Amino acid sequence: MMFRSSRREVLAAGAGGAVALSGLPAFAAGQGEGRRPGYAIVGLGMYADVILPRFAECRHSRLTALVSGSMDKARAWGARWGVPERGLYTYDTFDTIRDNPDVDIVYVILPNGMHHEYTLRAAAAGKHVVCEKPMANTAAEAESMIAACRAAGRKLMIGYRSHFEPANREAMRIVRDGELGRARIVTAETGFNIGDPAQWRLNRALAGGGSLMDIGIYSLQAARYLTGEEPVAVTAVESTDRTDVRFREVEDTINFQLRFASGTVANCVSTYGSNHNRYRVVGTEGWLDAEPATAYAGNRLRLRRGRETVEHTPPALAVNQFSGQLDHLSQCVMTGAEPIVAGEEGLKDMRIIEAIYRSAAEGRTIAL
Amino acid sequence: MMFRSSRREVLAAGAGGAVALSGLPAFAAGQGEGRRPGYAIVGLGMYADVILPRFAECRHSRLTALVSGSMDKARAWGARWGVPERGLYTYDTFDTIRDNPDVDIVYVILPNGMHHEYTLRAAAAGKHVVCEKPMANTAAEAESMIAACRAAGRKLMIGYRSHFEPANREAMRIVRDGELGRARIVTAETGFNIGDPAQWRLNRALAGGGSLMDIGIYSLQAARYLTGEEPVAVTAVESTDRTDVRFREVEDTINFQLRFASGTVANCVSTYGSNHNRYRVVGTEGWLDAEPATAYAGNRLRLRRGRETVEHTPPALAVNQFSGQLDHLSQCVMTGAEPIVAGEEGLKDMRIIEAIYRSAAEGRTIAL
Repeated sequence: MMFRSSRREVLAAGAGGAVALSGLPAFAAGQGEGRRPGYAIVGLGMYADVILPRFAECRHSRLTALVSGSMDKARAWGARWGVPERGLYTYDTFDTIRDNPDVDIVYVILPNGMHHEYTLRAAAAGKHVVCEKPMANTAAEAESMIAACRAAGRKLMIGYRSHFEPANREAMRIVRDGELGRARIVTAETGFNIGDPAQWRLNRALAGGGSLMDIGIYSLQAARYLTGEEPVAVTAVESTDRTDVRFREVEDTINFQLRFASGTVANCVSTYGSNHNRYRVVGTEGWLDAEPATAYAGNRLRLRRGRETVEHTPPALAVNQFSGQLDHLSQCVMTGAEPIVAGEEGLKDMRIIEAIYRSAAEGRTIAL
Repeated sequence: MMFRSSRREVLAAGAGGAVALSGLPAFAAGQGEGRRPGYAIVGLGMYADVILPRFAECRHSRLTALVSGSMDKARAWGARWGVPERGLYTYDTFDTIRDNPDVDIVYVILPNGMHHEYTLRAAAAGKHVVCEKPMANTAAEAESMIAACRAAGRKLMIGYRSHFEPANREAMRIVRDGELGRARIVTAETGFNIGDPAQWRLNRALAGGGSLMDIGIYSLQAARYLTGEEPVAVTAVESTDRTDVRFREVEDTINFQLRFASGTVANCVSTYGSNHNRYRVVGTEGWLDAEPATAYAGNRLRLRRGRETVEHTPPALAVNQFSGQLDHLSQCVMTGAEPIVAGEEGLKDMRIIEAIYRSAAEGRTIAL
């Protein structure tokens, strides 16, 4: 008997928790006040179901539109989440959203292969965009998304929610403040034992790739945001059983090592075959680890100094990571500030992801 | 201020604990009874100081000789450990040990670069040999050690103490019995922040290499003994600050990935820059981890099944890992059985180690 876990189960693991937006870029009092920017959610799937309840905790954002393949589904969700008929769209009518003054921001929660198209259509409709990770199927698509939003004079943010989550923010602070001495080795593991072979995550055209695109990207992000450094070389090894019906089109396991200019190295796991959600940063004077590390709630930090290992409670944030992310972009829209996880951040990951795939395919280290 | 830890501190971490030889190859009652084989300890350094007190718990072994560079030191240690003058040797007089009927086994605890010479001299003196890890500086040396002992009709064992330690034996059993489902990903990390730049471990001629030879070999061993598989390919990345006075001759960090034929992969850390001593095996139905994993005592196992993580106490063994290892070879000598960690086991590691170095040097995956 195989124990297969849904992606939701792995990421949702852990206790609930309320959260305050300290540490994030401060907006001056009065900035971002007034009318709350309105969001259109594009793609009413599993993750939209995670996001929609979070508007209730937002201080600077409101839900004003829903976009789905089916108007019946849009109506049902609209009734549930208080979105009126004039805020309901299908993919066919999506471009008319330009005429809806209640929508300031479009949140693209579609399969990866549709991120590029819907970001371009949202920008063409004069809307700001937040796009889920991975930003696109390729770095070239990511570049054109950045260019399109820039040309339209609109913000582009990537849905890297860990940047708005207290344990991850505290981990970044601890490492970057040098509390572990010099960071030496990062290990980061993310993965789950994927189920239904028919899901879009296992379809190359829709997903762009396998575990790396969907879940391994958390390990890559963590290695980068924990160290605050960019890798100079990647070395990857893929292991995929192509006779497994799930992996006809995309990779299962692809583990990768990153080398940073400082000498720090990261060993990362990305898999669709088993459950992983943790990282550790080991420095010259101690270590920090998180497990779970990037769950929807309940992430836990431990610190090692000398011979002691202690649980570490991060400072609370005003709102949960999802609401914090929504409000951050709203405030950027109101004030003109750049998001802390702008499109350029997503592009960096896409370029490294392409190098990881190339390294695994060619069996050699790729310099960045 | 750097927190530097001695190798001893890292490996000695954890509580003490007594240990029975269940699970190890059973010797029939009466086998190995009678006169206890006598050991000569060659090299009175830090690790000899760990081994010598363990004879008190041995049931099948006794200490009968000491070999040191200095006869004064040999006499002082002899007085302390009850070895009479006729059992004391210098490296110059070592070959006359052939005439000492109280010595059946020579335990080589010298710097790595001397393992080859002293194993050959011990075999030429008609003695069985246990040699510390790494077996030698090179696979070629290891091969000649095996050939010499075989030609002399004597046993050769490598000092892989984890095979006699309860947590590690239980971990092997759990993984190989399939209690985690199919093993998918192994992560293993061993390292410490090495101090004194003048020590032999940082001298290439004496150590054969850096962290990989001394401490990373534990990660390599763990990946192999946990899965019970041999790697088919290795991919390694080295990171060494050559301006650090400690690393003029040998590597600091060398992390490596192993790919096994079954599709299982191992991500391993080896470093002289920070403290690491843990492994985790993640299977399709849960995981097992150990931290510390290969300490002298106090190793701790945890198991994850479904949503629960529990501490797991391994079945006790009759004696501690050091005494268990000494007695195992004594029993093999008495019964003619082959040691569970014979020279061939050490040779396998040496061949993989050479491939790891080659992979890092050439920046590409090396097939085995």
